[in-house]
Order: sequence, then C-alpha cells, then structure tokens
Amino acid sequence: MTEPGAEVMARFVGPENVDRGREYLESLDPEFHRYIMDFVYGEIYAGDVLDAKTRALCTVAMLAALDQQLQLGVYVRAARRQGAGEEEIREVLRQVAVYAGFPSAWNALATMKRALEGLADDDAQGGSGT
Amino acid sequence: MTEPGAEVMARFVGPENVDRGREYLESLDPEFHRYIMDFVYGEIYAGDVLDAKTRALCTVAMLAALDQQLQLGVYVRAARRQGAGEEEIREVLRQVAVYAGFPSAWNALATMKRALEGLADDDAQGGSGT
Amino acid sequence: MTEPGAEVMARFVGPENVDRGREYLESLDPEFHRYIMDFVYGEIYAGDVLDAKTRALCTVAMLAALDQQLQLGVYVRAARRQGAGEEEIREVLRQVAVYAGFPSAWNALATMKRALEGLADDDAQGGSGT
Amino acid sequence: MTEPGAEVMARFVGPENVDRGREYLESLDPEFHRYIMDFVYGEIYAGDVLDAKTRALCTVAMLAALDQQLQLGVYVRAARRQGAGEEEIREVLRQVAVYAGFPSAWNALATMKRALEGLADDDAQGGSGT
Amino acid sequence: MTEPGAEVMARFVGPENVDRGREYLESLDPEFHRYIMDFVYGEIYAGDVLDAKTRALCTVAMLAALDQQLQLGVYVRAARRQGAGEEEIREVLRQVAVYAGFPSAWNALATMKRALEGLADDDAQGGSGT
Amino acid sequence: MTEPGAEVMARFVGPENVDRGREYLESLDPEFHRYIMDFVYGEIYAGDVLDAKTRALCTVAMLAALDQQLQLGVYVRAARRQGAGEEEIREVLRQVAVYAGFPSAWNALATMKRALEGLADDDAQGGSGT
Repeated sequence: MTEPGAEVMARFVGPENVDRGREYLESLDPEFHRYIMDFVYGEIYAGDVLDAKTRALCTVAMLAALDQQLQLGVYVRAARRQGAGEEEIREVLRQVAVYAGFPSAWNALATMKRALEGLADDDAQGGSGT
Repeated sequence: MTEPGAEVMARFVGPENVDRGREYLESLDPEFHRYIMDFVYGEIYAGDVLDAKTRALCTVAMLAALDQQLQLGVYVRAARRQGAGEEEIREVLRQVAVYAGFPSAWNALATMKRALEGLADDDAQGGSGT
Repeated sequence: MTEPGAEVMARFVGPENVDRGREYLESLDPEFHRYIMDFVYGEIYAGDVLDAKTRALCTVAMLAALDQQLQLGVYVRAARRQGAGEEEIREVLRQVAVYAGFPSAWNALATMKRALEGLADDDAQGGSGT
Repeated sequence: MTEPGAEVMARFVGPENVDRGREYLESLDPEFHRYIMDFVYGEIYAGDVLDAKTRALCTVAMLAALDQQLQLGVYVRAARRQGAGEEEIREVLRQVAVYAGFPSAWNALATMKRALEGLADDDAQGGSGT
Repeated sequence: MTEPGAEVMARFVGPENVDRGREYLESLDPEFHRYIMDFVYGEIYAGDVLDAKTRALCTVAMLAALDQQLQLGVYVRAARRQGAGEEEIREVLRQVAVYAGFPSAWNALATMKRALEGLADDDAQGGSGT
Repeated sequence: MTEPGAEVMARFVGPENVDRGREYLESLDPEFHRYIMDFVYGEIYAGDVLDAKTRALCTVAMLAALDQQLQLGVYVRAARRQGAGEEEIREVLRQVAVYAGFPSAWNALATMKRALEGLADDDAQGGSGT
C-alpha cells in the first residue's frame, strides 16, 4: 500500500526521522500526525514545481525568520540531504538578519551548528540517515 | 567611481527602483539609506555563495512569513527578474501556509497578484525594468 | 455531488462568502483554494469535537492576537452567525490585550466595529447572509 | 478582607498556583504582581460575559498562536479545570496550525502532553488542585 | 473630581488627543477605554521611575519593533512633546533594524515622516498641541 | 590598530564579553561576526545622538517585546553598566506588558532576575566587568 506523504517526508528528513516522528506524533495527536502526512508532505512538499534543494532552503529561511529552533534543526539537516552546502545554508541565515533581525539570525546559526555537529556524530557512528 | 551596493541592488530590484528608492530613502533618513546600500546590498546580497534566484526566493519566503507586504511586492518582482517562474513563487507562498499560517499565505498571494499585474502594466507601457 | 469543505465553510462564513471567495481564491491560486476547502474546512473545521460557537470565538482570539485584520473581520461575522453575542466577542478581544498587548486589542476592536456595521448595512439592504 | 483578583485567579489556575505564583511574582516584581491580580484577574477574567470554559479555551488558543509555552502549560490545566475535555483542547491546538502554522501547533501539543502528564502525576500523589 | 489616567495621557499624547480618543474609544468599547485610562495611563505611565522622554522613546522602540504603525505615529509625536529631538527618534528607529529587521525599521521611518509632517501642518494652522 | 566596533561593543557589554563573544561568534560564522562588529557596533551603536543609557534601555524594550531572552539577559546587564537603575529597567519591562502582552513581560522579568543574580555572583568572585 502506498503512503505518499511518508515517502515525500522521507526524501526531506530521512527515513529514520519518519519512523521516529511517527511514534512521537502518534503520541502527541494522531489527527495532527495525519495532517502532516496528508497535507504538509502529501500536498505541499509533494509538488515538483520547486526543486527539493530550493524548497528546503526556503523552509530554513522561514523557520529561522519565525524563530522556530526545533524544526529548524531538522530542516538544516534536510537541506544538507538535498544537496545544499553548509556555506549556502549559512548564507540564508545571514540574510535572516536583514529581514527578522540579528537575534533571530544568531539563534539560527547556533541551531545550525548543533544540528550539523549532531549529523557528524550520527555519521561517525555509522548512523542511519542519507 | 564605483558604488557596489547600488549595482547589486540594481541586479535584484531593477535600476529604475534604485533611482526611485534613492530619492525616497534620502527623504526618510540618509543614514538608513546608507545602511541599506552598504550593509544589505554591499555585504549580504553581494555574496556569491547563493545563486541570485535562490536568494530572491528565500527573501520572498521570509517576507511572506513575516507579513511584510510592501517589501514582498518588490521582491516578487525581483524573483521574476532573477528567473523564477510565476509558478515557483506561488509554490513558495503555498509553503508559507505550513510555517506561518493560512492568513499570511493568503495576504502574500494577494500581494503577488498585484505585484505581477503592475509588472505587466509597466511592460505594456514600454516601461523600464530588466 | 458533495463538496464537504464548501458546506462547512458556508456554515461559518455564510454561503454568499463561499461564492465570492471561490472566484477570488481561484484568481489568487487554485491550489491554495483547494487547500482551504479540503484541509481548512474539509478537515479542521469539519470536526464536531468543538461546538461551532466556541470554535469561531477561538478563531477570533487567534486572528486578533496575530493582528490579521482582514480575516478577523470575516470571523467576527462568523462568530455572530454561530450565535456569539456582540458582547461575548468584545470580551474575547479585551482579553487579547492581556496576551498580545493593547495595540492588537485596539486594532481588533476597530475591525469588529467595521465588520458589524457592514453586517448591519447588508441586513438593511435585505442582503444575503444568515 | 477580600482580594477579588486572587479569587478569580484561583478559579482558573487553582488555589495552589495562586500561592506558588504569589511568592514567585513577588520575587520578580511586586508591581507586576499587583497588575496581574488587579487588572488581569480583577478586571479581565472577573467579567461574566463569557463562560469560564470558553474563556480558558480562548486563552489556550492565543497562547499557542503566540508560542508562549510556559503560560500555555498553566492554561491547558486551567481549561481542564473549567470542564474542557482533553479532546476539545486538542482540537483548539489543531486549529492553531491553520492560523499560526504547524510549528506553533506542534509545540503547543507537546506542551499540552507535558502539562496533562504533570496533572496526572499530581493527582496520583493526592496533590492539591481543583 | 480627579481623573488621574486622563492627566497622564494628556502629558504624553496631548490634551486634544485625550478628547478625540475619549469619543473614539467609547464608540469602540467603554470597558477597553476604562482599561486604557485606569491601567495603561493610571498605573504604567503614571510611575515616575523613568523620565517621560526615556519612557516615550522606549514606547517608540517597542511599537516599531512590533510593526504597530497606527500607535507609533501617536508616540512619535508624544516623544517630540517630551523633548526628544527628531534625530534621537530617528536613531531609535535605525536601531530597530538590528533587532526586528530592516522592513520594520523602514515602515517605522515612513510612519515617523508622516507623523511629523502632520505635526508641522497642525502647528501651521495654529492647531492645538503642546 | 583600531577596531572601532569592538570598542563600542566593550562599552556596552563589557570587555570580557567582547572576548568571549569573539571566540563564540567565530565558531558560529566569521562573516556574521564581522557584521556585528562593523554594522551593529561599528555603525548603529557608534552614533552619539542617543546617550548610552537611553540606547541600552531601548534595546531592552525591543528585546523584551520580541521575546528574545538570550540577548535580553546581556542587555539588562549592559543597561546597568550604562547607569540604568534596577528599578528603571524593571519599569521598562512593566511597560512591555502594555505593548507586547503579559507573557512577554513576565518572561522578561524572569530573565532580568537571572541576569542580575549572575552579575552579583560575578562581582562577588572579583569577576571581570565594568
């Protein structure tokens, strides 16, 4: 049976995060989980108008501008997975200073640092992921 | 004499907007004008790590997420000028619904419509621009 | 043919606004229109866990707290349509001052005044509506 | 001697939280403490136009939309205390996704989970409360 | 009979704005009007810990950072009335670019321009005011 | 060799924080570090139109209104260093309740308490600082 939202989500955040996310989101709220799979990934992210790297960078830009650090960490890794270089992500976050102010840009750069260090740790442990 | 910020700004918003902007910004505040030319365009936008189209789409994403309609109109046109298709910009704005909510996405799509209609009018009048 | 989102939307904002909204949203973006009908009204608003009046007042509270005046005007009328008294809506907006500050509460009360005056005008003209 | 704000506050957040809050708020700022008792609870929450359950759900809606997790935890419990079912609160938080975006709704559902688990723990310990 | 909030308000926004404001706020909501007179001006602004000029400049800073243009216009004039020079207000608004981003600073400088031009017009007409 | 931004920064946040900040900001992003030294401190904070105490209090007002707790802690200390009394800073934060709501004011007062306790600890240890 196909579950198109889950496949799209896996392309962006990695299959291991779909699995972890599934359990966690079910414990939070199964309806909300369904909205994320059907609407966010099944509709919005499923479109092919934007290439995946540009899409992930736009998500990084929005999450940083809105100061949403938890999700930003996930999407910094998603952007890397889609082929964005570390320096490209960093450049998006510098631009956040212009539109949302220096504190949001600073917070975002700190989140990026932690997210990529975590990624490096995962890789060093032969971790799941890309 | 070179004025690097102004050249970068012209690449994004069009030379005609640099001229109009110059007069207006001088009347608002010459110091603030200088910061835009030297810091925003002379530093942030002058970098070549991101291609200009991706950069403009990230700006569109942030301005829409922050509900800044005046500047969003300018950057919808800037994204078109950098080669982003109308449907690509629209896709970024749909994604705004996920991160900043439907009202901000709705406002942004209305701004986009007005901005591109204005662009069409300018072109019909043999207007300036790219 | 059933179109469940449209029926739910009509219950909240009035059938006349579904029709007007349909044309306008199609001109903005047909995909976005579909998300509103399928996700916002077809899923979120279609639930029967909350009674319609409480749901509409929570929407009023959120839109006012987020300073989204355009949609707030629509939902002040929707709350009236669901049986909320004018004084109940006003009480929600006073509470906005505590959580989002006095300027947002002030803006919301001004929007409410205009929305209800418009409703009175519509009624005087034998207008559509409830 | 009557202290009307304190009584109203106790009805919403529980008498045990008024006591804990008193000490903490005095240590933060006695003037601010007085504003909360006299204005927030003595005026805004003291009104009887809205029933207490609707009022608490509107507070939950606003705090979630504004991403204020600390106070949201307190008001999720307050809404339960006023008779709102767990599923009703959850439905309000799902609606937050529409107006303030999915990250704010996600954060709010996580806060709700922690707040209600804490409530269950308190009850298991024969704790204070309603 | 004394009405201390009204006197404090008059010191900041000018007696003519108290009168205009009274009628307008009564038409919006008499309870909200009372909160502004008793809490905002009768308590917060009535304190003498901060000198009036510093207090007005902090209000300008907050309103600009929160993008509340209507009230910002009033408080730009209030800051002038309390002895803040035009250049001092401008400097606060430049600083807004650092903390809330360039679009908010730009909007605020445009509001300031209009507010001070309006003030100049009022003075030219022998208008009320300081 | 002169480094004007660093000198201005030291005046506000203390020389010991410039040193700690330098290392940390270099590890986050050297470009972003340069923007803070050259633009934020080298331009905005370097101006002498506003006295340093008023400037620091306006920063406190903005950071509290925008709910940026990390930077607020630094600027509460900076305001003390520029001669603002504890009660003056507190008064600015009470005013935040009016413009950005009680939750942001509450968060800010809690940050202030921690920041000044930390300052007291530093002093007790013969710490660096002013």
